[in-house]
Amino acid sequence: MKRISKLLMVVATLAGIVTFTASATQSALKGDGPIFVREIPAGYRSWEFINVAHEEGNLNSFAAILGNDVAIKAYREGKLPFPDGAIIAALHWKFVSSEENNKVFGRAQSFVTGPPTNVQFMVKDSKKYASTGGWGFAHFNDGKPADDAFLSTCFPCHAKVKDRDLVFTRYAP
Amino acid sequence: MKRISKLLMVVATLAGIVTFTASATQSALKGDGPIFVREIPAGYRSWEFINVAHEEGNLNSFAAILGNDVAIKAYREGKLPFPDGAIIAALHWKFVSSEENNKVFGRAQSFVTGPPTNVQFMVKDSKKYASTGGWGFAHFNDGKPADDAFLSTCFPCHAKVKDRDLVFTRYAP
Repeated sequence: MKRISKLLMVVATLAGIVTFTASATQSALKGDGPIFVREIPAGYRSWEFINVAHEEGNLNSFAAILGNDVAIKAYREGKLPFPDGAIIAALHWKFVSSEENNKVFGRAQSFVTGPPTNVQFMVKDSKKYASTGGWGFAHFNDGKPADDAFLSTCFPCHAKVKDRDLVFTRYAP
Repeated sequence: MKRISKLLMVVATLAGIVTFTASATQSALKGDGPIFVREIPAGYRSWEFINVAHEEGNLNSFAAILGNDVAIKAYREGKLPFPDGAIIAALHWKFVSSEENNKVFGRAQSFVTGPPTNVQFMVKDSKKYASTGGWGFAHFNDGKPADDAFLSTCFPCHAKVKDRDLVFTRYAP
């Protein structure tokens, strides 16, 4: 019985991979409308630091924005638009009060990162993502990519900062 | 006249360097009480990212905490105490509301880094800094090290988190 369960799991997993790959390929081949990023860029947690950010309200997020070498170089040289190959990562956590720090400081003043919520990427490829300002957008919850409906909301908002090549984050000196 | 002014400036600068070096050497040779870090570790802005933090109140700060390779390895492996050679950097900016982002979002929700305020370091050397828990403390405003009176306040507060080897910041996954 155990063996059959295991076998079924393997089949289900494979089926999932096939379905996922097929849908990603389909989306990549469509060529109409925006194309989204479905894979987490390797090694992003070790990229260099660009800036931090905090959003209040429903998001209540604490963000670290990191960049690969191409993005960091462009930021430091003040180059806009970003060149092809640039990738910017936004790592998000809950914005929470630090009880352990406040206890030491003797007052409620300290805020830190809580549980991780999502990781987002902007991937610059002026040909591949021509229909969305040269940027491919990605959003992952627990390593799983968000669906098309969700990803469709990225570009319209980022398009509002065209003078910053669709990138909200500035470089922190 | 111009030439004399320039010459005086050079002399003044050299005198400043000599005085600074002499006082740093004196402090390093004293060997009584805590010894502080007087030089900014090279290349820290490119170190890997550990976490972010925000302090309310008078500080009103936004921080990014970065680490050199030794520190990052220890964090990822959950090793405590930190090994000799570990250096942790805390980059501080003012915590400010982002008018330009709020305008795009249509509501006041976005906080970003304002002007840089200071950079702090903790340098692990269990022999050199034995009297302060194995950590040397540093604080720089505009590249200039803080005085002894200011640096004397670092250790007593950090000593309160002995179970975290005197380091407040945890690693953000």
